[in-house]
Amino acid sequence: MGKIILASASPRRRELLEQIGIRFEVIPARGDEHAVKNRPEEIVREMAERKAGEVAAAIKETAILVIGADTIVACPKEGTDELKILGKPRDDAEAFSMLSMLAGRTHFVYTGVSVVVVDAEGEKTVHTFFEKTSVTMRPMQDQEIRRYIATGEPADKAGAYGIQGKCAIYIDKIDGDYNNVVGLPVAALCRELMKAGISLYEWQGDEDVR
Amino acid sequence: MGKIILASASPRRRELLEQIGIRFEVIPARGDEHAVKNRPEEIVREMAERKAGEVAAAIKETAILVIGADTIVACPKEGTDELKILGKPRDDAEAFSMLSMLAGRTHFVYTGVSVVVVDAEGEKTVHTFFEKTSVTMRPMQDQEIRRYIATGEPADKAGAYGIQGKCAIYIDKIDGDYNNVVGLPVAALCRELMKAGISLYEWQGDEDVR
Repeated sequence: MGKIILASASPRRRELLEQIGIRFEVIPARGDEHAVKNRPEEIVREMAERKAGEVAAAIKETAILVIGADTIVACPKEGTDELKILGKPRDDAEAFSMLSMLAGRTHFVYTGVSVVVVDAEGEKTVHTFFEKTSVTMRPMQDQEIRRYIATGEPADKAGAYGIQGKCAIYIDKIDGDYNNVVGLPVAALCRELMKAGISLYEWQGDEDVR
Repeated sequence: MGKIILASASPRRRELLEQIGIRFEVIPARGDEHAVKNRPEEIVREMAERKAGEVAAAIKETAILVIGADTIVACPKEGTDELKILGKPRDDAEAFSMLSMLAGRTHFVYTGVSVVVVDAEGEKTVHTFFEKTSVTMRPMQDQEIRRYIATGEPADKAGAYGIQGKCAIYIDKIDGDYNNVVGLPVAALCRELMKAGISLYEWQGDEDVR
């Protein structure tokens, strides 16, 4: 039994943990946003590990479980096998170019999750994984892109869109986990921790319903 | 330009319309829940048409757009091509048997949507379609099913689960539109109306951002 800490300032990640009934504190990692790795799945794993590691190191307590996560969008470059990595747009012009690229095509969303567990004896284990979801957007007219940017949603989101917001009308289908696109694959989080014998519900001291 | 009416009492459908920025009134259809048809896509179309039709007929106004919807879950019967249709569970025992059936397998969620448009001249058109999404649930232990039923979420939901609630940790992946599983495929709603030359945003008198 112990504390659960979310090492992220993202309101969407917070809402997802609340949705599944987890009680936690938020201690955002400052992190620097420069990954050393190149492949999307490596980048998100690396960034998630850094975030969770930074916060776990700063806390210096035992019986803590720290969750870090990082989400990026990767879009295939026309006619090649290469992927263009899209983070958060710097401004409206970049948001426009990102959305123009994504509209009418299928892209991939990667979220890396890293969980640092420090047990009551101070023993530390790290569990890191990633989840990938395909997202197919319908074609958008320039005017629709501008209207969407004017909602303010693209500003703080990888790939310049929020699937759980007004962009919903442009998402034709996904293949994979939806919450992974929102920013935290809670199903994979529970599944991966379960493999290591850890239940978030037991960790926070919930009584079992039997 | 005119009024938009949602012919459904579902808080989830209301939230989805709000999410995409639609302003509307709620006038739930009373409806009877007995479909004449047998195939899932026919059942949901029929029920949606009845709901939207009932409310549109009762209003007797012009310049209205009435949205009706119906969602069901269809689960393949083991080793056959037949589908078992799951509506809302009558009680916890039925919720348990539905969730036992869905766990560890892929099932289909169908939402039918019917939109009755009565223009300023009183001319009526009806636009009906359906959307289908595959949902893959991970295996659940009996104790997990009981714990989930104890949250109260299954009671008012087709198939006895809410993808947008605590059941999220048991949904490994979906293939198709997520909001269709929540209860209203807003992307398809906008897309299908657009084919008929109707924009919900123009209908409610939004100024265009150009």
